[in-house]
Amino acid sequence: MRLGILGGGQLGRMLALAAHPLGVRPTVLDPAAEACAGHVCPHVRGEFDDFRALYELAQASDVVTYEFENVPVESARWLAERVPVFPPPRALEVSQDRVVEKTFLNSLGVPTPPFAAVETRAEFDAAVTAIGLPAVLKTRRFGYDGKGQAVIRTPADADHAWETLGGRPLILEGFVPFDRELSILAVRGRDGSIGTYPLVENEHRDGILHRSVAPAGDLGEELGERAAEYAARILTELDYVGVLAVEWFQDGPRLLANEMAPRVHNSGHWSIEGAHCSQFENHVRAVCGLPLGRCDAAGWSAMFNFIGTVPAAAAVLADPAAHLHHYGKADRPGRKVGHVTLRAGGADELAEKLPGWSAAFDRPRAGG
Amino acid sequence: MRLGILGGGQLGRMLALAAHPLGVRPTVLDPAAEACAGHVCPHVRGEFDDFRALYELAQASDVVTYEFENVPVESARWLAERVPVFPPPRALEVSQDRVVEKTFLNSLGVPTPPFAAVETRAEFDAAVTAIGLPAVLKTRRFGYDGKGQAVIRTPADADHAWETLGGRPLILEGFVPFDRELSILAVRGRDGSIGTYPLVENEHRDGILHRSVAPAGDLGEELGERAAEYAARILTELDYVGVLAVEWFQDGPRLLANEMAPRVHNSGHWSIEGAHCSQFENHVRAVCGLPLGRCDAAGWSAMFNFIGTVPAAAAVLADPAAHLHHYGKADRPGRKVGHVTLRAGGADELAEKLPGWSAAFDRPRAGG
Repeated sequence: MRLGILGGGQLGRMLALAAHPLGVRPTVLDPAAEACAGHVCPHVRGEFDDFRALYELAQASDVVTYEFENVPVESARWLAERVPVFPPPRALEVSQDRVVEKTFLNSLGVPTPPFAAVETRAEFDAAVTAIGLPAVLKTRRFGYDGKGQAVIRTPADADHAWETLGGRPLILEGFVPFDRELSILAVRGRDGSIGTYPLVENEHRDGILHRSVAPAGDLGEELGERAAEYAARILTELDYVGVLAVEWFQDGPRLLANEMAPRVHNSGHWSIEGAHCSQFENHVRAVCGLPLGRCDAAGWSAMFNFIGTVPAAAAVLADPAAHLHHYGKADRPGRKVGHVTLRAGGADELAEKLPGWSAAFDRPRAGG
Repeated sequence: MRLGILGGGQLGRMLALAAHPLGVRPTVLDPAAEACAGHVCPHVRGEFDDFRALYELAQASDVVTYEFENVPVESARWLAERVPVFPPPRALEVSQDRVVEKTFLNSLGVPTPPFAAVETRAEFDAAVTAIGLPAVLKTRRFGYDGKGQAVIRTPADADHAWETLGGRPLILEGFVPFDRELSILAVRGRDGSIGTYPLVENEHRDGILHRSVAPAGDLGEELGERAAEYAARILTELDYVGVLAVEWFQDGPRLLANEMAPRVHNSGHWSIEGAHCSQFENHVRAVCGLPLGRCDAAGWSAMFNFIGTVPAAAAVLADPAAHLHHYGKADRPGRKVGHVTLRAGGADELAEKLPGWSAAFDRPRAGG
């Protein structure tokens, strides 16, 4: 089996590393000569809308997947006429536009914060009145890691936000109070079977994921079951194949979907060591039509992202609980260049060690 | 850090797959165009005594290691003048010759079966008289997977064995009665720190490893400690860096060393999923001067080799406890082409599931 992957960043790289032992031969397509997935498998160089490059990838693939949700839908559909493409291109369409995505989620009974589509200043003002402040103005498309967003707390903020973002298709989202951010990773096979990883607790810094703890603690009886059930609705409705991530705001007993990603996800990196079968292996298994692996946690884990630069390997690995993942990328401020996952044998051990790990791997807040 | 690996088979491939996440860039040297490690990292093509190829590897490496013990010692020494080579070339010299190896082990107080060096028919006859039958006649060098060996049970067998193997430097080894075959993997860092994996129980078929169970059951109080202590003596005496395997015959409370391998070893493949840090990652960490990872088992595991062909991935992965390792090699009778590791949460679960796993992954004995 030959697997084509659109995108050759760290997610493509970790997918490729998971594919090899399954006897699945990966090839990535990426415009960057130095794409880090190209260290571990063949690399077709080209833009994601370069049909010559897409054709070359299709020729080298029995099935195609992608590592990021901003793949041009036309490219995915063009490929899908030649070779199976999973997750289905419709999942891209839904997740590429925040208004379409939230409308879709609500239509399945999956709650989200209140939102309104905004094109004009008049629509913006009406939305602020309807939703109230605080709120967040975001571009409908191509936002990631907090980019293309502005928090509005006062009417003056509204003017500033409009100056910055106005003129593009936007969404105004109610800024819901929340206790914490959670996410769930779920996977659906070609045969419709579904697996769900435990809910994870995430902490962001400056709009970028900083830390995930898996499984999330203090979930009570049914929060995890509810998130899994919501994820299953999404997977089934989209006739989805592969791994899907859904980010949540938890407000007491309420779960509100923030966004979904039709791909492997940063908040699932802990699963390489912390689950019986990682999100990367399960995504490859799913899109290749293989049986899914176990999604349950094997112990307790905490994952910390490395942004801009990776600390010296010897320093990271001085803790025998540490598993280093260096993406082989050049250093650059704000860039995800690696992560570390630390494992504990039990919830108590995790609680005991987490403050020390956090102190070791905390990154400063911008401007702080 | 850039790591050169002499040999691009499955061991080199699994070393390379373990190297990437550490930020270590592997390159393999192998004469075969289709060397399977070349799927996961750059591949310098050349013979192991081709100094142009060795030079190319040295230029691409900050440290060099090897995946098999039959690397020409002159090549290892030539490389060691240009770039650090671990394990040290002396470990190759010791392990390439069964007489030198057993003499070395005995000199450290590590017991072995009785043995004698044999060059001539007269020496052979004298050795048979001294050691007694049954015994095994083996080539001193370049034997693996049961090749170059003849079991001698009767004087008539002796004549046949001599006809087959005579004329080369040989060793006659006493055929010790044993309860079972065990092996231990140990690792030593550049700083002299030592880690030891638990003793593993191995079953061979037709001279090729068939199954490993980790940790071995029914070890009693101190068999594991003794094997670890023997391994530590070997590592220290050789000023060793990297993973070393030692195979044992267990005869009641006695441990007799069968052979050692200065490299990662088939009987350590279970450690990818079954230990906190795999033999492959620990070998890379050791030779690159990084802190060692934890060698203790994470649960219970059984590993089965796939010889000649890999079963369909869907069939292997139908068991949710299964982890498939396909080496990406072409099918060929007698060739190691993959393995599966199955994990259990406890010794009882392992005992319960092992018969079923064995039935699923047993391979027929040759001529049986």
